Amino acid sequence: MDFLSGRDVRGVPPCDEILLPYDIWGSKAHTIMLWKQGIISEKDGREILTGLKDIEALFSQGVFKLDASREDVHSNIESELIERFGIDGIGKMHTARSRNDQIALDIRLYLRDQAANFVRDLIALLETMASRATRHAEAVMPGFTHYQHAMITTFGHMLLGLAMPLERDIMRFINWYSLFNRNPLGGAAGYGTSFPLDRDLTSRLLAFDGPHEHSTDPITNRWEPETDLAFSICVTMNHLSAMAQTFILMSTSEFGMLRLDESHRSGSSIMPQKENPGPLEVIKAKASLAQGILTGLISIGKAPMVGYNKDSQWAKYMIIDLVAECAPSLPIMSEIVNMMEVVEPVMQTQTGKGFIGATHLLESIVQHSNLPFRKAKVLVEKAVRFAEKSGREKITVTDLNRAMREMDLDLRFKAQEIAQWQDPVKIVQEDKIPGGPSPSATLKAISALKKRLKEYEKWHKSQSLRIRRSVSEIGSIEKGLGIK
Amino acid sequence: MDFLSGRDVRGVPPCDEILLPYDIWGSKAHTIMLWKQGIISEKDGREILTGLKDIEALFSQGVFKLDASREDVHSNIESELIERFGIDGIGKMHTARSRNDQIALDIRLYLRDQAANFVRDLIALLETMASRATRHAEAVMPGFTHYQHAMITTFGHMLLGLAMPLERDIMRFINWYSLFNRNPLGGAAGYGTSFPLDRDLTSRLLAFDGPHEHSTDPITNRWEPETDLAFSICVTMNHLSAMAQTFILMSTSEFGMLRLDESHRSGSSIMPQKENPGPLEVIKAKASLAQGILTGLISIGKAPMVGYNKDSQWAKYMIIDLVAECAPSLPIMSEIVNMMEVVEPVMQTQTGKGFIGATHLLESIVQHSNLPFRKAKVLVEKAVRFAEKSGREKITVTDLNRAMREMDLDLRFKAQEIAQWQDPVKIVQEDKIPGGPSPSATLKAISALKKRLKEYEKWHKSQSLRIRRSVSEIGSIEKGLGIK
Amino acid sequence: MDFLSGRDVRGVPPCDEILLPYDIWGSKAHTIMLWKQGIISEKDGREILTGLKDIEALFSQGVFKLDASREDVHSNIESELIERFGIDGIGKMHTARSRNDQIALDIRLYLRDQAANFVRDLIALLETMASRATRHAEAVMPGFTHYQHAMITTFGHMLLGLAMPLERDIMRFINWYSLFNRNPLGGAAGYGTSFPLDRDLTSRLLAFDGPHEHSTDPITNRWEPETDLAFSICVTMNHLSAMAQTFILMSTSEFGMLRLDESHRSGSSIMPQKENPGPLEVIKAKASLAQGILTGLISIGKAPMVGYNKDSQWAKYMIIDLVAECAPSLPIMSEIVNMMEVVEPVMQTQTGKGFIGATHLLESIVQHSNLPFRKAKVLVEKAVRFAEKSGREKITVTDLNRAMREMDLDLRFKAQEIAQWQDPVKIVQEDKIPGGPSPSATLKAISALKKRLKEYEKWHKSQSLRIRRSVSEIGSIEKGLGIK
Amino acid sequence: MDFLSGRDVRGVPPCDEILLPYDIWGSKAHTIMLWKQGIISEKDGREILTGLKDIEALFSQGVFKLDASREDVHSNIESELIERFGIDGIGKMHTARSRNDQIALDIRLYLRDQAANFVRDLIALLETMASRATRHAEAVMPGFTHYQHAMITTFGHMLLGLAMPLERDIMRFINWYSLFNRNPLGGAAGYGTSFPLDRDLTSRLLAFDGPHEHSTDPITNRWEPETDLAFSICVTMNHLSAMAQTFILMSTSEFGMLRLDESHRSGSSIMPQKENPGPLEVIKAKASLAQGILTGLISIGKAPMVGYNKDSQWAKYMIIDLVAECAPSLPIMSEIVNMMEVVEPVMQTQTGKGFIGATHLLESIVQHSNLPFRKAKVLVEKAVRFAEKSGREKITVTDLNRAMREMDLDLRFKAQEIAQWQDPVKIVQEDKIPGGPSPSATLKAISALKKRLKEYEKWHKSQSLRIRRSVSEIGSIEKGLGIK
Repeated sequence: MDFLSGRDVRGVPPCDEILLPYDIWGSKAHTIMLWKQGIISEKDGREILTGLKDIEALFSQGVFKLDASREDVHSNIESELIERFGIDGIGKMHTARSRNDQIALDIRLYLRDQAANFVRDLIALLETMASRATRHAEAVMPGFTHYQHAMITTFGHMLLGLAMPLERDIMRFINWYSLFNRNPLGGAAGYGTSFPLDRDLTSRLLAFDGPHEHSTDPITNRWEPETDLAFSICVTMNHLSAMAQTFILMSTSEFGMLRLDESHRSGSSIMPQKENPGPLEVIKAKASLAQGILTGLISIGKAPMVGYNKDSQWAKYMIIDLVAECAPSLPIMSEIVNMMEVVEPVMQTQTGKGFIGATHLLESIVQHSNLPFRKAKVLVEKAVRFAEKSGREKITVTDLNRAMREMDLDLRFKAQEIAQWQDPVKIVQEDKIPGGPSPSATLKAISALKKRLKEYEKWHKSQSLRIRRSVSEIGSIEKGLGIK
Repeated sequence: MDFLSGRDVRGVPPCDEILLPYDIWGSKAHTIMLWKQGIISEKDGREILTGLKDIEALFSQGVFKLDASREDVHSNIESELIERFGIDGIGKMHTARSRNDQIALDIRLYLRDQAANFVRDLIALLETMASRATRHAEAVMPGFTHYQHAMITTFGHMLLGLAMPLERDIMRFINWYSLFNRNPLGGAAGYGTSFPLDRDLTSRLLAFDGPHEHSTDPITNRWEPETDLAFSICVTMNHLSAMAQTFILMSTSEFGMLRLDESHRSGSSIMPQKENPGPLEVIKAKASLAQGILTGLISIGKAPMVGYNKDSQWAKYMIIDLVAECAPSLPIMSEIVNMMEVVEPVMQTQTGKGFIGATHLLESIVQHSNLPFRKAKVLVEKAVRFAEKSGREKITVTDLNRAMREMDLDLRFKAQEIAQWQDPVKIVQEDKIPGGPSPSATLKAISALKKRLKEYEKWHKSQSLRIRRSVSEIGSIEKGLGIK
Repeated sequence: MDFLSGRDVRGVPPCDEILLPYDIWGSKAHTIMLWKQGIISEKDGREILTGLKDIEALFSQGVFKLDASREDVHSNIESELIERFGIDGIGKMHTARSRNDQIALDIRLYLRDQAANFVRDLIALLETMASRATRHAEAVMPGFTHYQHAMITTFGHMLLGLAMPLERDIMRFINWYSLFNRNPLGGAAGYGTSFPLDRDLTSRLLAFDGPHEHSTDPITNRWEPETDLAFSICVTMNHLSAMAQTFILMSTSEFGMLRLDESHRSGSSIMPQKENPGPLEVIKAKASLAQGILTGLISIGKAPMVGYNKDSQWAKYMIIDLVAECAPSLPIMSEIVNMMEVVEPVMQTQTGKGFIGATHLLESIVQHSNLPFRKAKVLVEKAVRFAEKSGREKITVTDLNRAMREMDLDLRFKAQEIAQWQDPVKIVQEDKIPGGPSPSATLKAISALKKRLKEYEKWHKSQSLRIRRSVSEIGSIEKGLGIK
Repeated sequence: MDFLSGRDVRGVPPCDEILLPYDIWGSKAHTIMLWKQGIISEKDGREILTGLKDIEALFSQGVFKLDASREDVHSNIESELIERFGIDGIGKMHTARSRNDQIALDIRLYLRDQAANFVRDLIALLETMASRATRHAEAVMPGFTHYQHAMITTFGHMLLGLAMPLERDIMRFINWYSLFNRNPLGGAAGYGTSFPLDRDLTSRLLAFDGPHEHSTDPITNRWEPETDLAFSICVTMNHLSAMAQTFILMSTSEFGMLRLDESHRSGSSIMPQKENPGPLEVIKAKASLAQGILTGLISIGKAPMVGYNKDSQWAKYMIIDLVAECAPSLPIMSEIVNMMEVVEPVMQTQTGKGFIGATHLLESIVQHSNLPFRKAKVLVEKAVRFAEKSGREKITVTDLNRAMREMDLDLRFKAQEIAQWQDPVKIVQEDKIPGGPSPSATLKAISALKKRLKEYEKWHKSQSLRIRRSVSEIGSIEKGLGIK
C-alpha cells in the first residue's frame, strides 16, 4: 500500500538527514587523523570526538534535528558543537578540510552503502526466482517473440530468462566499488592543503581502498559516482520492468496464465470486480523515473568548468530520490514472484495453439531427410497454410503431403511422427541447447547460477565486515581517549 | 539562502497536500451538479457541501492533515466526512465519478494555476530586463560568438537578446490553456456512466473551456498535460541557464564586466576571499533537473495500453517536484538582473581589443569602394595579420596598404577614416538593422516588447477573473443552500 | 518493408543536401533585397540570380552534388558560382550576411515545411480513424484499465479515444508557426550590419510573418525551433505508440480481437507460422528514438554563452534525423488502421466475461433505490464474490440476495432486471455522457471532430498558398530581370 | 575539417555495411560447428565456407554491395550465395540458427571491437595528457571553483585532474567485456533448437568467454550491451566536455591562458579576425548527442515483453551512430592537448590577483599560532576586506593587524612572512597532499598513472591477440578443407 500510494500522502525528508551519520563518521576519522598527525592536540581531539558522539546519539534518538536556518548538515553540526563546547577546540575540526571534500565524502559513503544494498536485494530476488523456476521447470508454455507465440518453452525457463540479467546488475553494482571506493578527503577545496594529512589513515578508518589519486578529480566530477550508480539502478529497473510487463500481460483475463496474490492486486473506486496489477505498474513507472533522473544527472555533468561547481549539489538530491523510489522494488518483486499463482493448465492449453510446434517439426524434417533448411522451411510454411484453411492449429501428414506435391518433393512421413514432432512436452525435452528450455538444461543453469550467487554473497559479507572493522577501530580509539 | 541550500535541510511535502484544495473544489462542483440533475437530493447535497466546507476550513487552519493509512487525498476526505456525518448522505458524493476522472481533474486544476503563475513571473522578469536594458542601451561591449569577441554590441542589446526568448515561453504557457483547459470530470473510469451528468455545468463551475470531447482520452493520456507544462518549464529553464552562464562568465575576475550583488554571492568554508555566483549555478542545475523530469514524463507516456494505467500516477509526483524546484528561479533571476552592477568601463575597454571592429571596417570598405565582399574580406584578413605582427589590436592605414599591395589593389583610405570605422561607439550607432545593437533599434524593440507584455498581462488578469467568478458562483449556491 | 528494415541497408544522405533548396531560396531573397536597396547593382544581382537558378536546376536534375572538400552547402554553392562566373559579381552575394543567419534561415524554412507536413499527415490519419470509428460505433468490447477489463465500451469509441489526442498534436505543430515563423536573415553574425537592409522585404519573399525582433536571439537559440518541433513529434509518437501497443495486444492470439492486414505482418527466419506486428513495433521504437533526440536537443540548449556556439550545429543533424525517421509513421499507421480486420464476435464474447457489467449494475441499483453509492458498491462487491464461488462471470439475483442478507438490506430486484443491467449492448446504449461510449455520443463526437478537421485543412492550404505566392513573386522579379 | 563540418556534406552508410564482416565471421563459425557436429556434410560445409570467403573478398574490394530489395545483411548474403551456388548446400547454412541470435551475435562482435578501440584511444589520450602535464608541473596558475579563482595550482596539476577520470572510462569499457563477451549464438529464436550444437566451439572460434547462460536473455535484452557501451561513451564524452569547456574559457581573450593551435581554430564567414575553438565546441555537442542516444536506448529497453521485440532493432542504429560520432573525439582531443600553446606568464600574473593566496595564509596562521581554524578564518576574512578597501589584491601585515585589533587578538607576524605565505610558487611547493598540486605530488601521480596505463595496454594487446587466434583457427580449418 505504501508502495502503491507513493508520495500521495508521504513527504520526502531533507537529504542531509540521510547523510548525517556519514558526515559524523567522516568528521571522526578526520579528527583522529588531525590528532595523530599532531595538527591538533589530544585535548582538542577528545573534545571534538566527544561532541560528535553526543550528536550521533541525539540524532539516533530523534532529538537532534536539522535546523534550516543553519544551512546544511556540516554547519548544523559545527554550530551545535560550538554552542555546546565553545569555539576554541571545536573550531579546529574543520582544519585542512573544505565542504567540497567533506560533502564528496558523505555522498561517497552513502552511495557505497546503497550499492551494497542493491547487491544484497538482487541476490535475494535471484534466489526467489531460481527456486520458483525450479518448481516450474517442466511446465510447458508458449515462448513469445513479438508478443506472439513463437516456440515451446517452460515457465521455469522463461522465469530464469528474466532472472539472468539481474546477475549483470549485481556485477555493475560491485563494479561501482572498483571505480569509486576511494577517499576524497584531503583534497580540501580541490587544491590540497599545506597541512601534513595522512590520507591513508582516513581511508582505512572509512573503509576505502585508498585516497583518490588527484585532489580535484572527485570535486569536478561530483556527478559521476552518482550517475554511475543511477545507471546501474536504471538498468535494473528496466529489467524489472520487463518482468512487470510480462507478468501484467500473463495475468490479463485473456492470457490467464498467472494470477497475482491478492495482496498484490488493487481494486477500483467504482468497479466492484477490478483486480489491478498495481505494484507491477508502479515498477514500470519507477523505471521511467529512473530514466529521468539518470538524464538529469548526466546533464549536470556536461561541460562543467574544472573544479567545484554548485550545479553538482543537485546531483545529491537526484540520487537520493532515485534510491528512495527504486530500492523497495526489489523486495516487492521478490514477494510477487514468490506468491503468484502459476496457472499451468492454461499455459499447456495454449501450447496446442497457433502452430507453435512448427519450428520443431521443421527441424525434425531436416534431421530426418536431406532437405536443406531453406527448402524445408518453405515446405512447412505451405503445410501451415493448408492446415489453417482446414481450421486446424497443428499440421497433419495430409497437409505436409499436399505441400510436398506442390513442391515436387517425395518424402514419406508417418502420421504419428508428425504428431510427435509437434508435441510440446517432447519438444522441450528434446531441446539440445545448454541454456535452452529443456528441463535438464534449465536445472543445470539454475544450479550454476546458485553457485555464482554464493560468490556474490561472500563479496557482500566481506564488505560489511570491512566497514564494521573500520567503525570498531574508531571505537577503540575513542575508548583509548576515555570517551564512552 | 533557501534557494541555495535546496533540499539539504528542507523536506518535500506529500503531493496530495498540494492537491487538496483542488480536490475539494472539484467535489463541490460535482456535488452541486448531482443535485441540480436530481441524482442526489438537496438534503444530501447540503450535507456533502457542508462537510467539504468544514474540511476546507480545517485544512487552511493547518488542522486537517492527510493520514497515510487512508491512502490518498480522495479517500482521506471521504473517510473523514463519513466519520463525521455517517455514510447515508456522504456515501453519495462519489456517485458517477471514479478516482480516475477525479485525480485527472485535481491535477488539471493544479497545472492550470502553475501555467498562469509562470506567465505572471515571466512578465515580471521581462519587465525587469527591459528596464535594465534601457539603462544600458548605449553601453558598448564586445558581442560574443564562440565565447570569443565577435562584433560590437551594447549591454542593453545583449540583455534584451537574452530576454526575448522568454516571450516565447509566455506563449507556450498560454498555449497550454488552449490544449488542456478542459474538464475531464464525467469520464468516470474512462468509459462514462449511465447517470445523466451535466458536464457543461461542472465545466463552468471549474472555469474550464468545456468538457473533454472524449471520456477515455484524458485518462490514457494523464501524462500529457504534465509533460506539456514540463516542456515549457524546461525550455524556460534553458533560457535562464543561458543567462546564468553568460552572467557567470562576465563576473569572473578575468572578464570583470559584471558584479553580482552581495546577496547573490556566496562564500566558501575555507577560502576567505571567495564570492561565488551560487544562485546562477543553481539555476543551471535546475535546468538539468527539468530535463531529467521531462524525460521521465515522456517515458511514462510511451506505449501505454489504452485506458488508465497506474504508471501515470508518477507523472503527478514528477511535475509537482519540477514546479516546486523551478518556479522560484524566475523571481530570483529578476532580483539578480535588477541588482547586479554593470561595469561599463571594463566593457568599453574590451571593445578596443582583438580587432573587434574589423567586420565593420570591412563593411565600410565595401560601402566606399566597388570591391566585392569576398575580396574585401581577404584584404582585411591580411591587414589583421600585419597588425598582429606589429602587436596592435586595431588595423591602421599602413596595414591596409601593405595588404593592398599584396593583392595588387589600389584604393585610397585616410588614416582617420580607418580609425573611425573601427570606433565602437560609432559602429553601434551606425548599425542599420531593426533588432540590431544600435541604441535606437534597441529602444524601439524594448518599447514594442512592453506593448506586447501589456497584452499578456491582460490575458493573465482575465484568467484570474474567470476563476474568481466560478468560485463565487459556488459560494452563492452554498449560501442559497444555507451553508456558511 | 523499407519502414521495417530501417537503416539496415539504407544510408542517410548529407544534411545539407536536404537544406540546399532552402539555401538557394534564401540567397535569392537576400540578393533581390540587396539590389532593391541599392547595395549591389542590378547587373550583379542578375548575375547572382542567374547562377542560383542554374544550380537549382542542376541540383533538381541530380547533377549538382555537394563536395565534401568544400565544407558546407553555403560554401559549395558560392565556390561553384565563383568558379563559373568569377568573384567580381558573385563575391557580393554574401554582403551583409553571415553563415550564422544564413543557416538559421535554411533550417527555419526546412522546419516550417516539416511542421506543415505533420499537420497534413495528422489530418489524414484522423480522417481514417474517424471513419473506421464510425463503422464500429456499435461493436461492444471490454473497455480496459490496467490492461484489465473495466467496463463496456465499443471499438469505435476506443479508436476515437486513441484519435483525439492527435488533434492536440495538430495544434502543437500549428503553434510552432506562431512562435517561429520569423525571419532570422539580417541578424548577420548576431550583431547586425551597417548596410541598410530591408528585413520586411526578405520576410515577404520567404513567406515569414516578419523579421525576428532581435538579431542575436535566433542565433543563441538555434536549438529552440528544432527542439520545439522535436517535442511535438515526440508527443505525436507517444500517441502513436499507445495505439501500437493497444493493437499489438489486441492482435495476440490470446486477445484475438484484431488481425493486421497481411502486408503489415512479418514472418520469421525460422518459424514457419509467425505473423509479427512488425510496423507497430517499429513505431514504438521510433517513439524511443524521438525521446532520445529530444533529450539531445535540450542538452544542446543548456547553458550556452550568449551568441553563436558551434554546438548548435548538431541540432541540425538531430532534427533532420528525427523527421526522416518519424514522418513516415503517420501514413503507415493510417494504412494499418484502414486495413486491419476487427474481430467483433471475439470482442462481444469477451464482454460477457469477468463481471465487466458490474459497475453498470451498481449504478442501476443506486438509480433504482435510495442506497448510497458507497453502500451499493459494498453490496455488489459481495455479490461478485458469491458469483465467483459458483463459477459464474455475471451476477444473478441469488448472488445479490445473499449479499443483501449479509448486509441486512431489504431491496427487491427481478432476475430479468439484474440480467439486463449487465447486458453489454444495453449498457453502452444507456451511457449518458457526451464523449462517452454510447453510439450516439460517439457519432456526435466524430461529426464535431470532422468539422474541426476542416478548419485545420484550411489553415494548411492557406500556408501552402502563401509560400507559393512568395516563390512566384521571386519568379516575377527574375523574369523582370530577363532571367529564365 | 571533417570533424567540424559533421554531417553537412557527408552521409551515413547503411548499418549492415558495418556489420557485414562480423556477419560473415559468425556464419563461418556456425558452419564449421554444424559440420563438426555432423549436422551438415563436409561437402556442404566446404561450399558454404567457400561462398562466404568469396563474398568477404568482394566486399573488401568494394564490389559486393548491399541491395535494399534484399532486406538485410543476412538475407543479402544468403540470397547472393544461393544465386551463385544453388539452394541445396547453401540452404543448410541457416540450420539451427535464427536471425535473432545471428544479429545479436553480429552486434556483439561489433560492440566488442568498439569497446577495445575506446580503450586504445583513451590510453593514447592519457599518455598525451600525462606528458603535457609533466611539462607544466611547475607552471603556477589559479585553481578554479565556481569559475572563480580559488587557490593556487599548476597547469600540470589541473591537466592531470582532467585526465584522471578517463582512467575510470577505460575501466568501464574493460568491464563491458566481463558483462557481455558471451556468445548468443545457439539461442536461435530465443528458445533453443533440437540440433546438437556445440556452443563452446563457436564461442572459441569467435573469441568469446563462453556461451550465454540462457537462450532468451540476450534476445530480450538486445538493448543492454548497446546501452552499456553507450553509457561508457556518454560518461567519456562528459569528461571530454569538461576539458573542452575549460579550454574554451582559458582561450578567450579575457582569460588568455591558452592558445589553440591554428589547425584547431576556425574562422568566420564575415568576421576577418575570428579564431573560434570549433573542435572543442563540437566535442560539447557530441556529449549532448551521446546523452540523447543513451536516453533513446534506455527507452527501447523499458518494459518489453519477454522474448524478441522488433523495437530493439533500433538499438542497432542508435549505437552505430553514437560510435561513429564520438569515437573521433579522442584522437582529436589528443592532438589539441598536444599542440596547444600554454601561456604560462599570463597564468602566473593571474595568481597574483584576487587574494588567491588567502587560504594558504590562513592555514599558515593556524600552523604558526594556536588560533582555531574557525577564528583564523574570520581574521583573514576581515583582513581581505581591509585590503580590498585599500585597493590591494594581497593581504599585508597592516591589514592583519587591523583585523586582529577588531577581534581583540594579539599575534605577531612579520611583513615578510605574510608575503611569503601568499607567494604562489611557495604555496604549491609546500602543498603536502598526495594528489595535490605540488610539483612533486603531480609527478608522482603521473608516474603511477603511467604504470597503470601499461597494464591497460597489456589487456588491450591480449584481447587483440585472442581475436587473431580465433580468426586464424578458422583460416586453418578452411585451409584443411582446401579453401583458399
